Amino acid sequence: MGSLPLDDALFSLNPDTFAEESTAVVDFLARYYRDIERYPVMAPDAKPGSIRKVFPDAAPETGESMDRILDDVQRDVLPGLTHWQSPSFFAYFQANPSGAGFAGEMLSAGLNVVPFMWKASAVATELEQVVVDWMAGLLGLPELFCFAGGGGGVLHGSTCEAVTHATFQKGARIVGIPPANFRVLHIMAESGYGLSADTVRAAVEEDVARGLVPLYLCATVGTPGLGAIDPVRVGTTGLGAIDPVRELGQVARCYGMWLHIDAAYAGSAAICPEFRCHLDGAELADSVSMNPHKWFLTNMDCCCLWVADPTALTSALSTDPEYLKNVGSGGDVSTIDYKDWQIALSRRFRAIKLWVVLRRYGAAAMRNYIRRHVRMAEWNFSLVCFRLRQRLGIDDDAVDGLNRQLLAAVNASGREFMTHFVMDSKFVIRLAVGGAMTEMRHVRDVWELLKDKANELVGGS
Amino acid sequence: MGSLPLDDALFSLNPDTFAEESTAVVDFLARYYRDIERYPVMAPDAKPGSIRKVFPDAAPETGESMDRILDDVQRDVLPGLTHWQSPSFFAYFQANPSGAGFAGEMLSAGLNVVPFMWKASAVATELEQVVVDWMAGLLGLPELFCFAGGGGGVLHGSTCEAVTHATFQKGARIVGIPPANFRVLHIMAESGYGLSADTVRAAVEEDVARGLVPLYLCATVGTPGLGAIDPVRVGTTGLGAIDPVRELGQVARCYGMWLHIDAAYAGSAAICPEFRCHLDGAELADSVSMNPHKWFLTNMDCCCLWVADPTALTSALSTDPEYLKNVGSGGDVSTIDYKDWQIALSRRFRAIKLWVVLRRYGAAAMRNYIRRHVRMAEWNFSLVCFRLRQRLGIDDDAVDGLNRQLLAAVNASGREFMTHFVMDSKFVIRLAVGGAMTEMRHVRDVWELLKDKANELVGGS
Repeated sequence: MGSLPLDDALFSLNPDTFAEESTAVVDFLARYYRDIERYPVMAPDAKPGSIRKVFPDAAPETGESMDRILDDVQRDVLPGLTHWQSPSFFAYFQANPSGAGFAGEMLSAGLNVVPFMWKASAVATELEQVVVDWMAGLLGLPELFCFAGGGGGVLHGSTCEAVTHATFQKGARIVGIPPANFRVLHIMAESGYGLSADTVRAAVEEDVARGLVPLYLCATVGTPGLGAIDPVRVGTTGLGAIDPVRELGQVARCYGMWLHIDAAYAGSAAICPEFRCHLDGAELADSVSMNPHKWFLTNMDCCCLWVADPTALTSALSTDPEYLKNVGSGGDVSTIDYKDWQIALSRRFRAIKLWVVLRRYGAAAMRNYIRRHVRMAEWNFSLVCFRLRQRLGIDDDAVDGLNRQLLAAVNASGREFMTHFVMDSKFVIRLAVGGAMTEMRHVRDVWELLKDKANELVGGS
Repeated sequence: MGSLPLDDALFSLNPDTFAEESTAVVDFLARYYRDIERYPVMAPDAKPGSIRKVFPDAAPETGESMDRILDDVQRDVLPGLTHWQSPSFFAYFQANPSGAGFAGEMLSAGLNVVPFMWKASAVATELEQVVVDWMAGLLGLPELFCFAGGGGGVLHGSTCEAVTHATFQKGARIVGIPPANFRVLHIMAESGYGLSADTVRAAVEEDVARGLVPLYLCATVGTPGLGAIDPVRVGTTGLGAIDPVRELGQVARCYGMWLHIDAAYAGSAAICPEFRCHLDGAELADSVSMNPHKWFLTNMDCCCLWVADPTALTSALSTDPEYLKNVGSGGDVSTIDYKDWQIALSRRFRAIKLWVVLRRYGAAAMRNYIRRHVRMAEWNFSLVCFRLRQRLGIDDDAVDGLNRQLLAAVNASGREFMTHFVMDSKFVIRLAVGGAMTEMRHVRDVWELLKDKANELVGGS
């Protein structure tokens, strides 16, 4: 590749340079995937602030070759990375990419259009309508969430943008709902840690009696991991539990609350008929969201949000400044301007990414893919929560300490990375199986590692 | 390439398939850039709803080859696209990609890490600190916005996330500030359509006298286009005018208001010493933002936000659920968890994209690139606003009508795409020069086209 003229930036999309350098990056990434098991899953000895010292204090004055830059990525970036694509990454919840998701991302980034209004890229808007309808169909959502049924969908970057907030208390704080008006409800082992309709009804009635107006209820369908760490849903999210959608929907209807179904992670499983029951009652909801970037082979970022009544979004979020009028719909109600379906004005062409994933793999292969992960975890979707008990009679604090040590020991090995959770004051280790590259042997390996470290800790007892 | 086994999704990151299919996409995009002038800039005869009919109603059951999918992109997607990368795209403001920005985007998408906390990818967090400091240095921002100076920066997706909202009234509405408390201030031709400190001071004093508390002031530095269409700043944004930062800063200090400098577009120009004066007084601001995805060769999306006091962000936006405690900083104040610098929890590895751009081109070439656009527009940064006047004495309404016809005629040609703006009730055509592929000949072409169509309209008079 060699060095390129200094003023290359003046011809930044030169097709030959583009093809040559992009191919070098493709080869770099293919090699990375090939070698990924050689890297510690998480840099075991990185200290905050230690990594940035590797980089100079100022941007370079003169440009450098792509080869040189990729060498530096290999030398300076990869060692400090937590390798989310390692097959032994069992932390949080996975962010699953794929060759097709990557290809779609390249098309999005290469075309680099900003489909904030229909005319700003008509096909980007309409392809988005197509793919959210496709996804609604695959998940078996009621017709009322499809455009033909009077509803419709939009692609956001994350659940946090999608009406509900996984970081829900943060969202409430931002829109000015005081923490005191935010209900943290108890969930119990008896209901599989799902939220019971009786609990919600009792809380709502208590609030109504105090003169408050119930506003919003979020039902969570097996949403562990990144997309859902808010303390209210901590049980359902940390443990992947499933709220009873139909029963919660009936409560929401009864009190006029907006019901959102957050199926960020487990929504993907609904493409398999055997898991679709968890969305039963969705016709009672006002909105539903799920993240193809979690468990649907779509590279970051991509979140589907469907609403039964799009005007609920557009009446709150539309803008119609003079600046954009000449490219607007001119009052044509059939035109979608997606800027009015989201908070931000600018947006990426995410639709082509999800479209390539669906086209490339097809629904049948995607179902196989989901089933493979569920089989590997042999559990509620693909998440296993467990704790080590040394022997009966030992008190909970001691068991907690033991499990904290066990988690620290396995993570320090660099051979895998998992996280924990606290439920009913108990420290629980949390193994999320769902990596795009994870095979059964990696699950067996982590199990062996856990047993070895546990034996070391309890002295082989 | 041919067909691949149905269960390819089970091995979605197979390095060989990945390399082969990604290379096909690279070649597709290189060909697109080579041929881009053959496409109408905007599909002149697309009608809302007409495009989506091309696509089937449901996702395919079986997967298809990447070749087949790329053929469909060529046949079904490109004709309906508004080609933002066409050198004759003069609408809104440009979203400039580059080979380096694309390479960086590929690394981000390929590694697919989610650097929401330091430990979730330590190097992604620290590289983000490095590049925002680099950018602050290039722009000549006061040291107080750098990490070493007690401040710091973060990469967001858009200005709308970056404390201020380009769609500022929308943001205010969302956080519960009633429209009645939102001041729309008059701007005048005499001040170059910038906001004058006297105007702000008078409005603030009137509000204070009424018992209101002034909260937030946004100074705009030549921010036209997408990032800034809010009606309040409509003059500065639509016309690329520049607010007097130092004077507004003094007013803000005097009344304890948060001052944000929105330099979404023109901030890039500050890498050239001759344009840096427009940020003079930035030390009086609480926050500054600019978008490398506009005029800095960084593919969508990327917005730098700097704050003088990071705790102002983190105290409002931090979350500390049990779920994440084991991967947190454990109270180490030197650790940055970027989830606490933004609203959403998940985030992309944008830092590597901006880093590759800066490394690949270097500051000197980037300055040449900015200067080339300014030279082509020979105007305030790279935006030209103008209107056709048939002859003296004609009334404004007639001139408006003439200009509307002129804009419609040039856009209908498909040879270029530009937008308009209304200022002081006058319809103004708005030509934004700043495409990554735009050369002087494209600017000359659009000028000839405008003259031809104008002559047709006024009958050669």
